[in-house]
Parts: sequence; structure tokens; C-alpha cells
Amino acid sequence: YGKNTIKFLRLHREGKKQFVKEVEVCAHLRLTSPQEYLEGNNCLVIPTDTIKNIVLVLAKKNGIPSLEEFAIDICNHFMTTFCQVAYVKTYVQEVPWQRLHEDGVPHIHSFICVPDGIRFCEAEQCRNGPLIVFAGIKDLKLMKTTQSGFEGFYKNEHTTLPERHDRILCGELFCKWSYGECKDFDFNCIWKKIRECILEAFAGPPDCGEYSPSYQKTVNCIQMLVLSRVSQVQVIEVVLNNTFYNVVDMKNLGLTNDKEV
Amino acid sequence: YGKNTIKFLRLHREGKKQFVKEVEVCAHLRLTSPQEYLEGNNCLVIPTDTIKNIVLVLAKKNGIPSLEEFAIDICNHFMTTFCQVAYVKTYVQEVPWQRLHEDGVPHIHSFICVPDGIRFCEAEQCRNGPLIVFAGIKDLKLMKTTQSGFEGFYKNEHTTLPERHDRILCGELFCKWSYGECKDFDFNCIWKKIRECILEAFAGPPDCGEYSPSYQKTVNCIQMLVLSRVSQVQVIEVVLNNTFYNVVDMKNLGLTNDKEV
Amino acid sequence: YGKNTIKFLRLHREGKKQFVKEVEVCAHLRLTSPQEYLEGNNCLVIPTDTIKNIVLVLAKKNGIPSLEEFAIDICNHFMTTFCQVAYVKTYVQEVPWQRLHEDGVPHIHSFICVPDGIRFCEAEQCRNGPLIVFAGIKDLKLMKTTQSGFEGFYKNEHTTLPERHDRILCGELFCKWSYGECKDFDFNCIWKKIRECILEAFAGPPDCGEYSPSYQKTVNCIQMLVLSRVSQVQVIEVVLNNTFYNVVDMKNLGLTNDKEV
Amino acid sequence: YGKNTIKFLRLHREGKKQFVKEVEVCAHLRLTSPQEYLEGNNCLVIPTDTIKNIVLVLAKKNGIPSLEEFAIDICNHFMTTFCQVAYVKTYVQEVPWQRLHEDGVPHIHSFICVPDGIRFCEAEQCRNGPLIVFAGIKDLKLMKTTQSGFEGFYKNEHTTLPERHDRILCGELFCKWSYGECKDFDFNCIWKKIRECILEAFAGPPDCGEYSPSYQKTVNCIQMLVLSRVSQVQVIEVVLNNTFYNVVDMKNLGLTNDKEV
Repeated sequence: YGKNTIKFLRLHREGKKQFVKEVEVCAHLRLTSPQEYLEGNNCLVIPTDTIKNIVLVLAKKNGIPSLEEFAIDICNHFMTTFCQVAYVKTYVQEVPWQRLHEDGVPHIHSFICVPDGIRFCEAEQCRNGPLIVFAGIKDLKLMKTTQSGFEGFYKNEHTTLPERHDRILCGELFCKWSYGECKDFDFNCIWKKIRECILEAFAGPPDCGEYSPSYQKTVNCIQMLVLSRVSQVQVIEVVLNNTFYNVVDMKNLGLTNDKEV
Repeated sequence: YGKNTIKFLRLHREGKKQFVKEVEVCAHLRLTSPQEYLEGNNCLVIPTDTIKNIVLVLAKKNGIPSLEEFAIDICNHFMTTFCQVAYVKTYVQEVPWQRLHEDGVPHIHSFICVPDGIRFCEAEQCRNGPLIVFAGIKDLKLMKTTQSGFEGFYKNEHTTLPERHDRILCGELFCKWSYGECKDFDFNCIWKKIRECILEAFAGPPDCGEYSPSYQKTVNCIQMLVLSRVSQVQVIEVVLNNTFYNVVDMKNLGLTNDKEV
Repeated sequence: YGKNTIKFLRLHREGKKQFVKEVEVCAHLRLTSPQEYLEGNNCLVIPTDTIKNIVLVLAKKNGIPSLEEFAIDICNHFMTTFCQVAYVKTYVQEVPWQRLHEDGVPHIHSFICVPDGIRFCEAEQCRNGPLIVFAGIKDLKLMKTTQSGFEGFYKNEHTTLPERHDRILCGELFCKWSYGECKDFDFNCIWKKIRECILEAFAGPPDCGEYSPSYQKTVNCIQMLVLSRVSQVQVIEVVLNNTFYNVVDMKNLGLTNDKEV
Repeated sequence: YGKNTIKFLRLHREGKKQFVKEVEVCAHLRLTSPQEYLEGNNCLVIPTDTIKNIVLVLAKKNGIPSLEEFAIDICNHFMTTFCQVAYVKTYVQEVPWQRLHEDGVPHIHSFICVPDGIRFCEAEQCRNGPLIVFAGIKDLKLMKTTQSGFEGFYKNEHTTLPERHDRILCGELFCKWSYGECKDFDFNCIWKKIRECILEAFAGPPDCGEYSPSYQKTVNCIQMLVLSRVSQVQVIEVVLNNTFYNVVDMKNLGLTNDKEV
């Protein structure tokens, strides 16, 4: 993810109402022969510039109904158009523009960027192989101020961490899943449903929450809830990069600190 | 902003309901004598470590009812406690944690980070001078997909920019204002009101918007609306760092592009 | 790379002369049973805190003769000490401190950070499997202002890139290689030799250089030179993330630009 | 620094030998009338695009003998060409490309990026005012592993920092100075001399160093040495952003740690 990244806006209108999608696309190809590496023969090489033009043309012609459909479209194009392509992988991520509202009224052409979790997807295909589609969310920062602990772990002479039954659980969540064979899905709807599952499993019921005995168990709860509620998901991966907050020891300062700071 | 930065969480509870504030504080002092620079005599120097401890103790004792009250509290403490302090400046910024909602029901202890504009404030004081309070918002990304142009600008032999009456206006907004003498304000309420003014002046009415002839004029409209609606604001500064989107020229690719890509 | 990262300095002295190594270490374990995920049973979990303490104790006791020996040391420790560990991977990277020189004289205790390529290594081991050691260099930025082109590539209706026989080749190089079975190597010496091979293969002879027909061919030349000169290297991967420089078209400004800007 | 930044390479040749300068330029103008803000009248506005073209044309026509001469050239151009300009400020910074050497032999066209301190300069001018030139170095990371302490500081009930007579002094140095009236200087030579002064004052003599009683005193030593050795410098500012290294307390782990980790 880097070299071939292309970032652009796709706009469309329905009546006076405007719609916008800002995406970053990264396409990676592997050719049937590595002769450009071995011999410096470039005759099969599709330049980055051409790849970018194709991505832009596909966006203009077909639009971006969902990130997943756009990624599939790109893969299909490269596979069917270029016989020298042995493998194609496409990554698409979306800048989270949301329509502005004034006193609850949606604005026809103004948007605000609200990055509370970034949506992305990946599609990949080997020649003669199936098209595999992944989707996911990243940079989703969550916190529970209570109902989290970490106790009963393995101890030896290098252990200094105290047991805690009321700590703060805070972290950046990454979640990626693959879809099964049939691809005629409402990807936008499924993505929203999975995001809700993640939040629900992380937080527990709104009135009381649910105790988390470790981030590992919380990660597992998220996976289980998504798999049980969203049948289209085949495999799911969840990573929660903890941020640790230490309760400041204020004994030296003559104060007791009951997790307030 | 850097060296003396201290980042911490302040929690409190009302019944079972939890509240959280995560702040970054940076305090800068100037002493009445620069003898530590000139002579290496440290006897008046208040170490960074001590400054951090004081900030934590104040947060614990007095809480953080608003960023501005906390910054004022810190300034007051340094001025009244240390006679060697000639000047103190405090910067406070908030990590934008918002309470999670499940089907519209607020969660008692779970939060999500939603960085759609970062709130900050500054308080500064010279010994025997007034306490000056600034507040602001930064990293607020906004876009208008239409109703923006740039025409009639100065032209000479180095001009290559074409005139545009329908371009995309997109940028990162920074806004900082100062408050007048009386400081007994509801800072949280004022800040929210100013944020709404900014969005309204940027976007215009929700059903039709308002034409922006340049980002400079839009910046001025924002300033004017805030000053007319919020009497507590004395001076206001607005910077809009444009992001430029070029309409991709697809003539070489045999397509016309009506600002769709 | 992230969650378990620990960054620290290791100092030692020989006479009055000081030596310093600043490293970032990241250790990742997989346990024989995932019961902490499935059942919330933490009894086999080795907390991040304990892992960090172990890394610090090993650094203190055994020093860091080379990054690779330190990474091997950490892997060995976890495998031999904890029977619940099924797999361990250790990543170590070094902050590039270099001794300061004044008029060519080395300073006994002062250092400057010179990040012209970051050295890193990885060691990984499955229980009952071999210990595998990787080493590498990253963030190495290189440029050739001439003797580089890109011609004869595949063309179709989406091609807009012109052929170039004299372009600028510039990019950030990433190189990672694995070592074979016997691990009793002078890792510091080998790493320096490989760095020299990379620079030589990228640049060609100092008096005339060598023509690069594509970055792919240059990548292959680097791999070939390292494999031919350094017998301890088993497999090598090179990635060159191009930075593209376009020659500014100054025709509109009434000037011809012979690749000067 | 941001909106108007333009980054480009300037190449030139002497015989077969190639020279390269990669610079980032940021020019800021203030006009005699703010009518584009107040009335949306753009007729005096010089678009960013035009500014960029002018910077490129000046680089091509006059070259970049030194950053300072280039910044002065840009200021002069805007002041003499546009009567609506009331104030101009130009910031220029250089990407630190260095010629590659193979076994001590300089390569004719290959370069490596060595960011051990970034050179920058600023020139600013009000209409009818003097042209003021600043130069500086930033992102220079330095460390002393011994000969540094911090003792005798102010203490009260919030003090927790212990006195230290042998700590590590490490930080990122920023240094900026202004030149006096006469501008016919060898800016490249002066800059190198000042860089050497900074390193010498920070480190002390190579065989024994010099004790630093605080970073404030070291900052002052740097300023004093530059002012005494380089007569062209009028005013100098030095900031050293400390990085703190704590000696890890290994008492809990049954070890004593004599500043080794």
C-alpha cells in the first residue's frame, strides 16, 4: 500500500442534491513473466500511470455504488483485459465524509469529515482462481471506563503488573472479514450491521455493560457476535491495540487517587 | 507545544453513569530572572516533573468543568504560588470522546473517539497583567461540492489557473478567538454555538447553500457571523487550508469529465 | 508491530569511552491454547508488562552485541522458559545514533542521530521448529539524477505516460533477507557489507554509473549482487517505492525546461 | 507553512557531474487592501498557482546558489513586480541529499538522503522596510550519555524529581538566527560554521566533554559560542526539546541498574 495509491473524489447529483465519495485506491499486479526484473524487458509492464487512468475511467463510467463493487470491478477489468496479468489485488479505502446537518436538516452540498472508523475493502484474484473479497474497519477508537479487568494471569519472577478488576479498556480496533462465494450482497448494509455488532459486543448492554476479563476475550466476543448475526461473513479477524492508562500514584503528593486521574 | 505536554484521563461518576475527559496540557513558564541560562544556577527552576504533578493535582481536586476553566485554574495556581514566575501560558486540548449509543440509548460507560474538529484553549498571564483566554477549534475538515468559484483574480504572464465558477471548496479549518474581560462564561455552551456558526457560514442554507467567490470571502463570512451572534468573542482568527481538487482531464482518454472525478 | 513495543537505551563503557544503543523491541507470542480468547481464562497469559521486563533484563545481563543476537536471545528465553509458548517472534530496530566527531576526532560520549537507513531484524521460532533470522534495512532514500529510463512498456488506449530515456530515479528502499541454518555469524559486519552492495548496485560505478531500464531491473540487480557477494544470505526481498518527479512543463510560461526543474 | 508549499528538484550539471537541490518553498503575501475578504473582489489576488509558477521560473532562471539567496530573490521579485503586495515572507527548506561515495570516491550522479539536521531559511519584507533574512537548522538530534546533570532546582510539596548529577541529555535541537544589514555573505559557508559551533558547544572537547548543569545552560552556551565566532549573526534562538530517559528501576526484579538500561 503506497506506490500505486491514487486518491480522488467521485461526485454525482440527484436533482439538486449532491453525493460525494473520496477514495484511495491501490492496485497491485503480478505478471505471468518476471522478464522486466530479469532482463529489463518492459514489453509486458503496465505502467502505474496506466493503472491510475483505468481506475479513474472505471470510477467515472460505473460509479462507486460500494467500495466492494468498485474493487471487484477493478479486478475484473485487469483480469479480462490483460492476458499478461497473473494476479491482481485491489485495496480501496474511503475518506469518511458525512453530509452536514443544520438543526437536523441535511445540507444539499456540504460535508464534514468524521473519522470514527475508516471503511476499507480488498479484492484479489489469481488467474483461474476465485475472486476473494475482504472488507473491514480500522482506526476505530473505543473506551470502557469500567467493567474491565485483568486477573489470574501467569506469574513469575519478572511479573510486576498488579491484578486489576476495575481498569480502563481503551484501544484502536482493526477488524477485517472475508465474504463467501456469492457476491450479490448489499455491501453497504452489511458493513453498517457489522459496525453495530462490534460496538455492541465491545460495550455490552447500554444500562449496565458487560465485564471484560481481558482484551482477548472481548476480541473473541466481537468475532462471535458478527459470525452469529451476519451469515455472509466467512472468516473474521479482530485486533484491539490497547492503550494503557495507569492510575497516577499520588501517595507521594499526599492524595489518594480512586481512578480519577 | 511539545516538551511539557502531559496527557491524561479525568474520570468521574454520577450514580452509575461515567464521564470522561482526556486532555493534553502544556504549560510554559518564564521566570523573573534568566540565571539558569546565564549562570547554570537552577535554584528558581520549577522542573517539568513538578509542573506535571501540579496539573494532575489540580485536575483531581477541581475537576475539568470546561477546558477554559481548567486552563485558568492552572494559570492562577502558578501565579499565586510561585513568586519567581513572570509569565505563564497554558494550552489545553481535548481528545474528542463521545458517549456510545446503541439504538439511540446512551451507554453508561462506553465511549467512541469522533475527531470531527478538536477543541482547544489557551490562557496566558503576565505578572500584574490581565488573564487572557483564547479558545478554538482545529482539524475541522469541510467540503462544498458546488456553490464555490474563483474568478476575476489578477493575471499576468505567469498565470496558468483558469477561472472557475463551479469548483469544489474543501479544506481544514482552524479557528481561534479571544474572550473579553468578564470570565464568568458558560464556555462549553459558547464553544458549541461558535461551532454551529462556523458550519452555517461555511455551508449556507441547507436547501440551496450560498455561493463562495473565494476562500477568503468564506473565511470573512465565518468571522462576521461569529462576531454578530456571540457577544463574548473579542477577536477571531480563521484559517482555511484549502485542499485543491483538479478535475481530471480525460480528453486524452476519449471521455469528457463534467466534474465527476 | 505496535502494542508490545518497548523502546530503551542500552549504555556501556570501555574506560572513559561510552557506547550507546537505542532499540525498539516488539515481541509477539502465540500460546499452545487459546483459552484466554474462548473462555476468558488468563492463567497462561504472559502480560505485556512481564514481556517488557524480560527484554530489559536480557539487555542488561547480556548486552546487545548485535540486533540479531539480541533477537535470538529473546526468542530462546521465551521458548526455554515458558512451556505454554507455541511460537515467538521478535522484531528489533535501532535508532541510528553515530558518534560525534570534531575535526575528525571521535567524541567520547556525544552522539548524533543520522537516519540514512534504519537497521532492523526479526527472529521467529515455532516450538520444535528451527529458529529463523531475518535482517534488513528500511527508510533508505536514494536518487539517481540521470542514467535511468523507462521505455518499451505495454501500451493501450489508457496509456498516457511518455517514454523516457533520461528520467530521475528516486525512491525509498526496503530490503530484508533471511540467514541460513548456521547462526554463528558476524551480523554487524554482514549488515554493513550488504548495505554497501545495495548502494553499489543502485548507483553503478562512481565515474559513469549504470543505466537503469526500470526500477524492477534495479531491484533485481541489488538482489543479485547481494546473493553473489554474501553467502550467508538465503532469500532476499527488495522493494523500491518510487517517488516520481515530473519535469515541469514551462511551455505555457514561455520557457523550455531541460529537466532542470 | 502549508497551503502554498511547493516542493521541487533543481538539477544542474558541470561536465558529466550532476548537482541536485530538492527544496520546499512556501511564500506568503499580504496585500495592500483586504477587499477579497470583505467584498469578495478578487482583482488584486495573486493565485497560489501563479505564485508557484513564479517560484519555479526563478529557480530555473537564477538557480539556487544558496537557500538564502533564493529566498531573497523571491522576495525581491514579488516586491518589485506587484504593487499590490504590502508584505512578503518566504520560507525555504532543503531535503538533505548528499552525494554517494563508493570507497571514498564521489559518485557523479547518485545521492543519498541523510537527515541529520534540516537546513532552512526565511526572508521577509514589508514595502518600504528592510529585507530581513533568517537561517536555521532543525530536527538535529543529539545525545550526551554522561557529563550532564540537573541539581539544586526549586522544591516544594509537588516535587518528585530526584536530583541527578549523571543523567543522559538527549533532545531535538532547533536553532534560528537573523543576519544583519549587509547581505553579501557566503551563506553556505556560514551555515556550516554555525552547525559546527552547535555541535562543539553541545558536546564539549572530544576527549573529556563539558559538564551541563541544565539544558538551559547548554542552550545558552550554544548561543554564546555562535555569537562569538560568527559576526554576521545578529540574534539567535535555540530550543532543545529534551527527550527524557528514565533509568529503569530493577529493584523489583532483583537487579541493580547502574544507568545501563
